[in-house]
Amino acid sequence: MGDVVRLGPRPAAPAPRATEPEPLWREVVGRRLRAARLASGKRLVDTAAAAGISPQYLSEVERGRKEPSSEILAAVSGALGLTLLDLTEHVSGDLRRTASTSVPRGPQALARAI
Amino acid sequence: MGDVVRLGPRPAAPAPRATEPEPLWREVVGRRLRAARLASGKRLVDTAAAAGISPQYLSEVERGRKEPSSEILAAVSGALGLTLLDLTEHVSGDLRRTASTSVPRGPQALARAI
Repeated sequence: MGDVVRLGPRPAAPAPRATEPEPLWREVVGRRLRAARLASGKRLVDTAAAAGISPQYLSEVERGRKEPSSEILAAVSGALGLTLLDLTEHVSGDLRRTASTSVPRGPQALARAI
Repeated sequence: MGDVVRLGPRPAAPAPRATEPEPLWREVVGRRLRAARLASGKRLVDTAAAAGISPQYLSEVERGRKEPSSEILAAVSGALGLTLLDLTEHVSGDLRRTASTSVPRGPQALARAI
């Protein structure tokens, strides 16, 4: 007789990810700043100048590539005529529209940051 | 005759600052994270451990001294059982309660950052 191979029940396949992790703060706030700028018909260079930052930097913030400091957020929001309250309310609205398919990231969000 | 001193109408004194600038994002989000942690009866060390960061760092984030990256925000929120949507909605509520006395910071927010 050869080796006995124990064939138990097939382990359950991992459930397909029906949901996406929530976007990161810088991603959703960047998209919102870009949407607010475009809605007000302002150019990247003008908004950046009004905020006192470079157009390249603003572009990276809008695309969620750079983490804006709180001072940069205030400066860009102010250049668009938005308060921090306006911004967080818009961001909440954006998140709410995608919340039905989102799961919190939680500590695993740090996996790629550390 | 001595010098003529032209005494026009007294220039209007600058209006007293009845309003405060809006808090910065890291200040209001830090306070909110701390309030959420205390409301759930969690200790700093346990929340920090669950989020994968040091208690010292979490303490500085809660006090608005350190700018948390989006990954840190997600990790701490997740450790408190909050989604990013929960967090931004709470922050909006906190800002709304102080909004009647707030003015946007705008580009001058960068004055101390550059």
